[in-house]
Amino acid sequence: MPKTDAQNAPFSYDGLDRVIHEKARLGLMTSLMAHPKGLAFADLKHLCGLTDGNLSRHLQVLQEAGLVEVTKGYENNRPHTSCRLTKTGRRRFLDYLSVLERLVHDAAKAAGKEDPVTPRLGLSPT
Amino acid sequence: MPKTDAQNAPFSYDGLDRVIHEKARLGLMTSLMAHPKGLAFADLKHLCGLTDGNLSRHLQVLQEAGLVEVTKGYENNRPHTSCRLTKTGRRRFLDYLSVLERLVHDAAKAAGKEDPVTPRLGLSPT
Repeated sequence: MPKTDAQNAPFSYDGLDRVIHEKARLGLMTSLMAHPKGLAFADLKHLCGLTDGNLSRHLQVLQEAGLVEVTKGYENNRPHTSCRLTKTGRRRFLDYLSVLERLVHDAAKAAGKEDPVTPRLGLSPT
Repeated sequence: MPKTDAQNAPFSYDGLDRVIHEKARLGLMTSLMAHPKGLAFADLKHLCGLTDGNLSRHLQVLQEAGLVEVTKGYENNRPHTSCRLTKTGRRRFLDYLSVLERLVHDAAKAAGKEDPVTPRLGLSPT
């Protein structure tokens, strides 16, 4: 049986998708995951502590990757932008999180802080 | 009482130190945390699945930030480079991990996959 990447390079964490891993985008994805019906641009900005420019730039990256859907419309006659995770976005974020979870466990174990009876969060795609 | 950053922007994850957060460097830090006595350049390269050039570049960033110590010497008359975490590196990595742990929990909760009886790994500085 051929070795998997994880066996060849156990600390490479190949599954840490760079589109998602960027710090601001990681906050955006978590924020949108917590609000499956979507969030207004202004709310997302405050939740993630971003400027208008930064939020626009990172949303564009996520949108181009098909992870986030941005809808521009009007609400009470005022422009209103709404953002939500796509189905692909949710799936890819869960995949990403299962790698991140493995990393936190590896590092906790390495630091001698692992509680061996701690069950995993169940994010792994087993 | 003034609000903390986390209350103002709960999804900003300010503690995700960019020096450590970069994907390859995250693998290097975890790998070095697992080997407190240090690792040879060649071993680190294989464990993290990096090329010579990439490993040198990322080690330099970590070294300049004071997180990693690189020792160049000789072993059996051959050049030998050894790398290890500094005390500061270990502390800053543990701080970073406590934020990462919070993010994984936030996201798991958001995804509806949280097990409410799951104890935390104990990385938080509380």
